[in-house]
Amino acid sequence: MVMTASKSRHADANSAVELREVARYRVIYGDTDKMGFVYYGNYLRYFEIARNEFLRQAGARYHAFEEQHGLMLPVVEAQIRYRRPARYDDELAIFAAIPEVRGASARFAYEIRRLPDGEVLVDGYTVHACIDGEGRVARIPSELRSALSGSIVQPLPLRAPGT
Amino acid sequence: MVMTASKSRHADANSAVELREVARYRVIYGDTDKMGFVYYGNYLRYFEIARNEFLRQAGARYHAFEEQHGLMLPVVEAQIRYRRPARYDDELAIFAAIPEVRGASARFAYEIRRLPDGEVLVDGYTVHACIDGEGRVARIPSELRSALSGSIVQPLPLRAPGT
Amino acid sequence: MVMTASKSRHADANSAVELREVARYRVIYGDTDKMGFVYYGNYLRYFEIARNEFLRQAGARYHAFEEQHGLMLPVVEAQIRYRRPARYDDELAIFAAIPEVRGASARFAYEIRRLPDGEVLVDGYTVHACIDGEGRVARIPSELRSALSGSIVQPLPLRAPGT
Amino acid sequence: MVMTASKSRHADANSAVELREVARYRVIYGDTDKMGFVYYGNYLRYFEIARNEFLRQAGARYHAFEEQHGLMLPVVEAQIRYRRPARYDDELAIFAAIPEVRGASARFAYEIRRLPDGEVLVDGYTVHACIDGEGRVARIPSELRSALSGSIVQPLPLRAPGT
Repeated sequence: MVMTASKSRHADANSAVELREVARYRVIYGDTDKMGFVYYGNYLRYFEIARNEFLRQAGARYHAFEEQHGLMLPVVEAQIRYRRPARYDDELAIFAAIPEVRGASARFAYEIRRLPDGEVLVDGYTVHACIDGEGRVARIPSELRSALSGSIVQPLPLRAPGT
Repeated sequence: MVMTASKSRHADANSAVELREVARYRVIYGDTDKMGFVYYGNYLRYFEIARNEFLRQAGARYHAFEEQHGLMLPVVEAQIRYRRPARYDDELAIFAAIPEVRGASARFAYEIRRLPDGEVLVDGYTVHACIDGEGRVARIPSELRSALSGSIVQPLPLRAPGT
Repeated sequence: MVMTASKSRHADANSAVELREVARYRVIYGDTDKMGFVYYGNYLRYFEIARNEFLRQAGARYHAFEEQHGLMLPVVEAQIRYRRPARYDDELAIFAAIPEVRGASARFAYEIRRLPDGEVLVDGYTVHACIDGEGRVARIPSELRSALSGSIVQPLPLRAPGT
Repeated sequence: MVMTASKSRHADANSAVELREVARYRVIYGDTDKMGFVYYGNYLRYFEIARNEFLRQAGARYHAFEEQHGLMLPVVEAQIRYRRPARYDDELAIFAAIPEVRGASARFAYEIRRLPDGEVLVDGYTVHACIDGEGRVARIPSELRSALSGSIVQPLPLRAPGT
């Protein structure tokens, strides 16, 4: 089952990007806090699940990327908007897209939706720099670039340069 | 020991706010990931430590606020910038400020610095809405407002309206 | 795909219990620590996934149990044996069984296996007390009891190969 | 304020060991779950804080141990007993001892107490194997051994009853 990709509400960050569902996740007790909702930091775990599965579906594995190239894609910026709380036992659909790939960085966009109604609970983005084993900025290898960009080029509209 | 409050680099978000050190934290294995650094979601735990201690030092306890008023301050937005990684066994100094209090929302700003050199590793902010037990937006009670604002008014310059 | 349920090595705790696979889980960065392995406390998250899915498959939902009966099943004891480390991107098969149900308590047994080779990485058990809203020990309701016990005694049909 | 070191209730595991307070910790939202209590897996984080601080106070740093000797002390077994729940904003006193050091393994014992009343909330132990970079069992170096063993017998003063 695939849900309709949403129109992004991030005019600045995720605009004109079609997100697609890449994973499902069932909320456990360990994700919630005493307010009864998923703890605000744990959505970044869900975002990571999204990145892993997005790359896997694009034919790349982050793991292999690290091992073969000695490169890493650490997060340099994250932004999260909490619209509605996710609760214990909710089944979540995790959406992702890559709205931007530059020479040495890439941006992922995310949406967390509740099933079965599809309500958007959380959205956000992360920006990743490509660095080598010594921590220096490095160009994203072409193999990874095409995995990332390929996912943009086809179903997803390219964003204007500089945005 | 208290470190010099930093000039914020968030021109938009934290501008002209003096952050002050509110807590210390020693990084454990459980905070790190296989990259050897603190996992990116765990900084939101440190931000929460900052909020709790900030309020405590301002004479308010978030706990009491919840229980007495039946109100909560859930996060509606978070933004994090990762400048340098924190590592296992690093001692961190956590800085916070409240650059903005509105009728039913407040913004916290944060910096995570490494000791002893004071290097800024991470900064960011969170925006919190005040809601009642039914999830409706509610005005921040005057008691909490003065705890929050008091911390601004005096040592911290007020921000211009609308910023 | 279903792996052969293991003979337990816990002569005392899990003896003569056939564990069955109840969930799959892909290890993320957020689960690991700087040693490169899953952090030792995070296996208790996997054990919780096992309990939730075990109950769901037995026709009970822990969530419903809490809401309808006002009862909880907090953990009173946990034991974990770490045999081999789970690593980033490993796909894990989570096995569970309920080797013991008493009047007001129950024991779950677990195994975490790595796919595709089926190597047992971790095993353990948890003991849960049934308590009411005031924290008093309470008898496990018959509905939940049969879901739990049924899973021991009888079938809980083995899954067909290839599923 | 210093609390009385407890007589252990683990007749088997922690018997005749005097635990001493090694750290304080304030419970945050991120530690709790929707039941309102600290999530059961998070006590293993507190146990890790105890190990780190115990070694630091014994003049050893786990970090240095890893880097200088290329050895690690992964957990091979953990046992936890949950007596009473820890809650949001509780201040916890974390106690530890090393009741046993063998050639290539060591056991830590723990107690988590709530302040100010000193109520024992959780106790447990972990067993650690000493392994080298290839994952082979290795003898604990004498330097670490004396830090560990000394801490039982000697350089660390036993605390007087009632202090």
